[in-house]
Amino acid sequence: MTSQDSPTADHSTSGAYVKAGEEFDRDMDYIPDRITRDSEHWPVEPGRYRLVAAKACPWANRAIIVRQLLGLEDVISLGLTGPTHDRRSWTFDLDPGGVDPVLGYERLQQAYFARFPDYPKGITVPAMVDVPTKQVVTNDFPWITHDFFFEWKQYHRPDAPDLWPEDLREEMEAVMKRVFTEINNGVYRCGFAGSQSAYESAYDRLWDTMDWLEERLADRRFLMGDAITEADVRLFTTLARFDAVYHGHFKCNRTKLTEMPNLWGYARDLFQTPGFGENTDFDQIKAHYYVVHTDINPTQIVPKGPDPAVWLTPHGREKV
Amino acid sequence: MTSQDSPTADHSTSGAYVKAGEEFDRDMDYIPDRITRDSEHWPVEPGRYRLVAAKACPWANRAIIVRQLLGLEDVISLGLTGPTHDRRSWTFDLDPGGVDPVLGYERLQQAYFARFPDYPKGITVPAMVDVPTKQVVTNDFPWITHDFFFEWKQYHRPDAPDLWPEDLREEMEAVMKRVFTEINNGVYRCGFAGSQSAYESAYDRLWDTMDWLEERLADRRFLMGDAITEADVRLFTTLARFDAVYHGHFKCNRTKLTEMPNLWGYARDLFQTPGFGENTDFDQIKAHYYVVHTDINPTQIVPKGPDPAVWLTPHGREKV
Repeated sequence: MTSQDSPTADHSTSGAYVKAGEEFDRDMDYIPDRITRDSEHWPVEPGRYRLVAAKACPWANRAIIVRQLLGLEDVISLGLTGPTHDRRSWTFDLDPGGVDPVLGYERLQQAYFARFPDYPKGITVPAMVDVPTKQVVTNDFPWITHDFFFEWKQYHRPDAPDLWPEDLREEMEAVMKRVFTEINNGVYRCGFAGSQSAYESAYDRLWDTMDWLEERLADRRFLMGDAITEADVRLFTTLARFDAVYHGHFKCNRTKLTEMPNLWGYARDLFQTPGFGENTDFDQIKAHYYVVHTDINPTQIVPKGPDPAVWLTPHGREKV
Repeated sequence: MTSQDSPTADHSTSGAYVKAGEEFDRDMDYIPDRITRDSEHWPVEPGRYRLVAAKACPWANRAIIVRQLLGLEDVISLGLTGPTHDRRSWTFDLDPGGVDPVLGYERLQQAYFARFPDYPKGITVPAMVDVPTKQVVTNDFPWITHDFFFEWKQYHRPDAPDLWPEDLREEMEAVMKRVFTEINNGVYRCGFAGSQSAYESAYDRLWDTMDWLEERLADRRFLMGDAITEADVRLFTTLARFDAVYHGHFKCNRTKLTEMPNLWGYARDLFQTPGFGENTDFDQIKAHYYVVHTDINPTQIVPKGPDPAVWLTPHGREKV
């Protein structure tokens, strides 16, 4: 998510994702603003905000998926950066002329600097940008998808899924917490471990929770039962990157995702649901990790495999 | 096989396996001496020579396996180096005191220097060493296993397999050539590619031949038919390293070996044959590649996966 995906998200770390002898420790200190119905500064308002995201980034990918699941495409516009970035910023290199057509920026950093001229941390996606002032509002990714659901409710499509079911909320928070610490962030803890022992401990934690999920999904079609929730979106973006990147690049190689029957059926079930698969770009995903993390892949060569066609095979999860 | 596994096997390359912009090109210029029945310098003689090998190295692993298949354990002794090495040499770090008990050497390099004081190239395994003079005789690995079969025949165990069947020799040479260029060396060509295009071309060549082998093994239990030959030994040592190392470390990740039914059954069939599995050490294999190749794995962290227990599952190839 950050322009450095770095332990400290500090511009001065010179692209060092791995710190010798240390465990990976994600900086979770984001711009705490929120866009809400009753906000004085940042009220919910159709057409006013732009979600800037990268399809490559699992944290940003969540917001892209939720925006579509809820039918917010016409009220919140979407700007997409390219899959790679330099030390300074994610860039709009996929757009004609390398410029975001709404903000007129080449680099997402410009939206951060427009609000905080001396912004000292990494430039992260997803970010919500206020289009009139071209200033970043927030990059606090868990709140962005939370507020898409609760604050923008009046603009959801009529049949939008209930991503935060009230009666499951408590259990869902516990599941999401475990998925965040052990899976979403757990794969990074494996990949950016600064010692063999830090890696092995991260690997064991990851697979303990992968096994727990495999068992949980034996008799639940989705994480919380019969319907898709926010918890599924959060797990999906990591699973989508598992065999393409985390298995080799981050050494999460006990098995492939495709070797875990319930998780693999579940991941394909989501992939084949509108909103998920069409926002998953394996080429961008692979380009991001393998090109940006030069301290674990100095050649920057991007693997050709695996073949993403397997994601379209029948998942058989209707029966669960 | 070399103390650098490097494109040039040149001591001065400072551990650079990958040369930017270049294809990997294996130096195949070895010490051309042979141990033969009618050799003046190096005649076949029980107890005189010591095979020095590393279980980690696929080229050396061939000689260890063939020695056992033919029952030559009592006439050719075996010295084993550790899985990793420095710029100078493979070392006897697994032996008590770090010294080979027969040669008294700490480093295989000493046997090379005993014969060629200015030996300018990489120190490679396997090597045949003349015990009386402690000099290296040859490191020419294809000839070493060839001569174990043809030159040491009178010392083979009575039921030794016919590894070089006369009536299949011509076809077998063609199969072994393709396996060498596309598979044995092909995985290195992927892993040490110095450009994206060199990698992609190497990957395509590798998988073309993997597919050809998968088809060939559909109606043949072994590469040449019903019985194990030298061609199987040569393919096996690469397959044994496939999922543990080449899939991730060398980016040979179209599929895992375990996803190719015929090749995977075949590989397990060999693994479960005396001489193969007990000479395959997955921990040493992983340690070698991930620790030695710092230009593609600078952290030197060794993956925990995959679980080697799958190699002992039923292969079902008796029916082929």
